[in-house]
Amino acid sequence: MIVVPGPSAPKVGERVAQIIGAKKVGVDYKNFPDGESYIRLTEGVKGEEVVLVHTTYPQPDKRVLELLLLIDTLKDLGAIKVKVVVPYMAYSRQDTRFRDGEAVSINTIFRLIEAAGADEFYTVDIHKEFSLGAFKIKTKNLYATEVIADHLKGMGLHEPYILSPDKGALDIARRIGEMLGAEYGNLEKARDRITGAITVKGDGVDARGRDVVITDDLISTGGTIANACKILKDGGARRVIAVCSHPLLVAGAYERMKGAGLDEVLGTDTVDSEVSKISVAPLIAKEFR
Amino acid sequence: MIVVPGPSAPKVGERVAQIIGAKKVGVDYKNFPDGESYIRLTEGVKGEEVVLVHTTYPQPDKRVLELLLLIDTLKDLGAIKVKVVVPYMAYSRQDTRFRDGEAVSINTIFRLIEAAGADEFYTVDIHKEFSLGAFKIKTKNLYATEVIADHLKGMGLHEPYILSPDKGALDIARRIGEMLGAEYGNLEKARDRITGAITVKGDGVDARGRDVVITDDLISTGGTIANACKILKDGGARRVIAVCSHPLLVAGAYERMKGAGLDEVLGTDTVDSEVSKISVAPLIAKEFR
Repeated sequence: MIVVPGPSAPKVGERVAQIIGAKKVGVDYKNFPDGESYIRLTEGVKGEEVVLVHTTYPQPDKRVLELLLLIDTLKDLGAIKVKVVVPYMAYSRQDTRFRDGEAVSINTIFRLIEAAGADEFYTVDIHKEFSLGAFKIKTKNLYATEVIADHLKGMGLHEPYILSPDKGALDIARRIGEMLGAEYGNLEKARDRITGAITVKGDGVDARGRDVVITDDLISTGGTIANACKILKDGGARRVIAVCSHPLLVAGAYERMKGAGLDEVLGTDTVDSEVSKISVAPLIAKEFR
Repeated sequence: MIVVPGPSAPKVGERVAQIIGAKKVGVDYKNFPDGESYIRLTEGVKGEEVVLVHTTYPQPDKRVLELLLLIDTLKDLGAIKVKVVVPYMAYSRQDTRFRDGEAVSINTIFRLIEAAGADEFYTVDIHKEFSLGAFKIKTKNLYATEVIADHLKGMGLHEPYILSPDKGALDIARRIGEMLGAEYGNLEKARDRITGAITVKGDGVDARGRDVVITDDLISTGGTIANACKILKDGGARRVIAVCSHPLLVAGAYERMKGAGLDEVLGTDTVDSEVSKISVAPLIAKEFR
């Protein structure tokens, strides 16, 4: 078995190779002046089982296309199996036709990954697990909660309260809460029908004097987290920490959260960012030992 | 039959719909802050034969992924046939494994277009026609030479000489030359093995007092054209005009060519640019009447 770390975030793939003691085959990568990607495997893969680790953020479209090019090229070069690991799967929030005529983009992309030649598909904390139903091949959604809980254990939290910003992501808070033996719950998120603004309500959450950990699958603009933080600090929280699997942090998100009083923002390295302090590599490596 | 003008260059698709008198169905399009595309057909397409016109430049990766999303979504919404027209096909220069381990990207992309559900595929002046062999569905490469020659006829050229910058693109010069009843030929292009710089030689081309039209399938940086222009002007050319099917014109290309003395640069609207004055819509429309 060999590991190919895709050009999007080679460090995760390199760590996976290291942990499982497998040979690493690199990818020569460049971007042409017209915006096209160039991809070349630096060593032969003929007859090999390949674990391809390639994430899809930032520049999701470029990264998704590279993923498809890599899978098809590996097969074309004679790899007998390509096990695809996408730590952060872009487009996974486009999982439902909310309005007539909309693309259910994640379905298309999953079908393309399979058509390109993937034999197995792994991802971390996909937005909704049912999306994986678009595949016919073997799939697995890995939970980052394990590596996140390990990290939180080392932080000396005071009477921790693990909080989901809404009901939809309560599962993550529950899993982390159970691993830490801590209380968990959720806020209520509401979208103003006229302005589109999101507000959160903290009824029933007693944060006084406690370290509150807000958990979510991803942090994009950080707006919800900033909003929740204010409520929790007003409610007397000692510290407010946000932790997510996928720190997308679009322009200004980190500053917005810090400005709202967040004491710490943490994410995993499914996406490379300034807060990606928790590695999912051990989690991925477990699947291939 | 309905026409769907893709969001990359809707004008070409709209003109095609107009010429063939078919109904147009639009695409709602936006770009999320995290870089993902959102696509929605504004009207039903169930039971329809659809001509989808979507080009793939600039931002080739985003445009290729949108193309795949559009095809799959049209099929998912019940279109009975999707005839895909890509006026400029990105990645078509990556058509050969020049070095071991390289992706033959155009093959992958063609297989994906077919896997997404395309029933027929049309493009304009693809870099090399053999690339279309990656498809199993019906394909056709349209020649822009016809609309280009029509445009040139209206320009009152003086003793025109139609010139390819190298032997590889001589076919285009020949076709245009024959349509205009003009002499045609080619320069010799050589790449310096050490510096990588491209030089062109004009041995045997007598440009004195004539209007020389340099033709190529695409203009990217404009370096070759600028180089050729200097030689032709030194050789006494009256006017030097460059014309191409696909005016990619990466940063500074237009200025570079103008600076080298080009009297005019022309392209078709397979790619939207400041020189896209010749429309391929009539050429495309002919296929669907």
